Amino acid sequence: MAEPRISSIDGKLAEDFAAPSHIEEVKEKMAAFARCHAEAGRRVVLITSGGTKVPLESRTVRFLDNFSSGRRGASSAEYFLDSGYAVIFLHRHRSLYPYTRMFLTINMLDALQFKGGNPGDVVVNQQVLPNIAKVLKRYQEVKDGSLLLPIEFNTLSEYLHLLKAAAQALSSIGSKAMFYLAAAVSDFYIPTSEMPEHKIQSSDGPLQLSMKMVPKILSPLVKDWAPEAFVTSFKLETDASILLDKARRALDTYRHQAVVANVLDSRRGYVVVVTPETQAELILTEDDVRNEVEIEEMIVSNLTSAHTKFMTQQDGSQK
Amino acid sequence: MAEPRISSIDGKLAEDFAAPSHIEEVKEKMAAFARCHAEAGRRVVLITSGGTKVPLESRTVRFLDNFSSGRRGASSAEYFLDSGYAVIFLHRHRSLYPYTRMFLTINMLDALQFKGGNPGDVVVNQQVLPNIAKVLKRYQEVKDGSLLLPIEFNTLSEYLHLLKAAAQALSSIGSKAMFYLAAAVSDFYIPTSEMPEHKIQSSDGPLQLSMKMVPKILSPLVKDWAPEAFVTSFKLETDASILLDKARRALDTYRHQAVVANVLDSRRGYVVVVTPETQAELILTEDDVRNEVEIEEMIVSNLTSAHTKFMTQQDGSQK
Repeated sequence: MAEPRISSIDGKLAEDFAAPSHIEEVKEKMAAFARCHAEAGRRVVLITSGGTKVPLESRTVRFLDNFSSGRRGASSAEYFLDSGYAVIFLHRHRSLYPYTRMFLTINMLDALQFKGGNPGDVVVNQQVLPNIAKVLKRYQEVKDGSLLLPIEFNTLSEYLHLLKAAAQALSSIGSKAMFYLAAAVSDFYIPTSEMPEHKIQSSDGPLQLSMKMVPKILSPLVKDWAPEAFVTSFKLETDASILLDKARRALDTYRHQAVVANVLDSRRGYVVVVTPETQAELILTEDDVRNEVEIEEMIVSNLTSAHTKFMTQQDGSQK
Repeated sequence: MAEPRISSIDGKLAEDFAAPSHIEEVKEKMAAFARCHAEAGRRVVLITSGGTKVPLESRTVRFLDNFSSGRRGASSAEYFLDSGYAVIFLHRHRSLYPYTRMFLTINMLDALQFKGGNPGDVVVNQQVLPNIAKVLKRYQEVKDGSLLLPIEFNTLSEYLHLLKAAAQALSSIGSKAMFYLAAAVSDFYIPTSEMPEHKIQSSDGPLQLSMKMVPKILSPLVKDWAPEAFVTSFKLETDASILLDKARRALDTYRHQAVVANVLDSRRGYVVVVTPETQAELILTEDDVRNEVEIEEMIVSNLTSAHTKFMTQQDGSQK
């Protein structure tokens, strides 16, 4: 497999994908966030989370999407924060969010009640939300410490440009930066120039779609935009038999630090963290499930250790 | 345009679209809900809301979707309830929901605080959510009266089968039933038999998709499944110049009662309600916007009047 050339990817990005209008502003915000926390001795992780929307029409009624609730990214953000990282959370609009994710399976209005029938006093029923006090306290600590910077995307174009901006913004803190690329990014797209303006008419008959391959942005990210950072990508397959091979091939091709490999059906209880030298199976036991342990806690613990080792090696090699 | 034949649509539904396993149970629930409210003298509206997911793989990683937050359906449900209707809310999983929709632009944890620093007392900050007491009160009334029956779908297949079941469940209450088909339903799909099992590999090169046309379910719904009901469909276009013509053509083809026609960019402030004899433009003025009037209030008011007239005519023609 030939390596994609960096210059051609940068060119494609400019040509086929419209940059969001606020890109420079967001980039400056991310750079300031990273500088400030690195100076305070913190590491910074950029988490991507959720699926990307790929429009089929420029005035978009229809789009292609990737399955992803954003659960893994939102949950991992909490464990990175618990491990002392500052977190840039680059996520799909309305995907799961750290801390609030715990309440998304219930209707919030079912958890509220009038205290003593008083309309001025609306309180949370802690029998419906038993963890609310603990979660709210932690949420407020994170907020007061400005430890979480949320950035939203909707479309694939926005994602690609924001990830590039984030990589450039984090390059100033060198090996203190980690990338945790958990978003489910589309492999296919329709270039702006080939997209119909208006809603495709069903009266025109069956739909024939021809979609191009999305440039592999991991390549310039690792080589050019943030060459000193610790980079973790994710591989999701439905066919377990090809998974590890694909994870190894990704490491060979892009020369980054780790791949978290997982299979759709078992992704909440089993992953393999693959690095150039190692391969660690992380498994959630029945006991873990009973104790509400999440696999993201294990993934984050594994990667923060690897990041520590990586930083030491980088420092060593620079002396 | 030739009319689709009912028998062929029923056949297609069974062949190309898998029915959800709980379909009979849901159908019985809807039928009981409709009977009970009709006996109490209430009309019943079936609202569909949100976009439909069209899988590209049977173990689904990728899917085609239609733009829809579910805002129109959720908002309309509240106005139908205010007008005395009982509501079956057939909506896309995690799309906007009546009453809670008002809080979806904020992070719920930003609206909560500890009262007097006491972890046992988590209260809503009514400066962040000024309408919470009013909305919670109305939500609880609706819940106590069992006036709202929520049913969820995710995929196009689930939507089609649930809509058919709903139509059959509502047929027993005749002209007291209204259909308000606001969901953004895909026009295209890939039959189960032509779908790959596993995630499509990007290493196979660019993606060629060939999608079939979804059967026009409005046809058997109007003619066969719920022939006495008042049926409203929606037409969304991005090109205003073809909109009214398409609305009229839909009425000619399916012989139902009303089409709500709207253009993507202006849909929150302007719609046209088209019936075989009339055409009513509904426009939100700047004053309306200032006073937080929503266009769904106007749409629902227009249609409930038309429904009243329709019921009287039906009664007359049966004597």
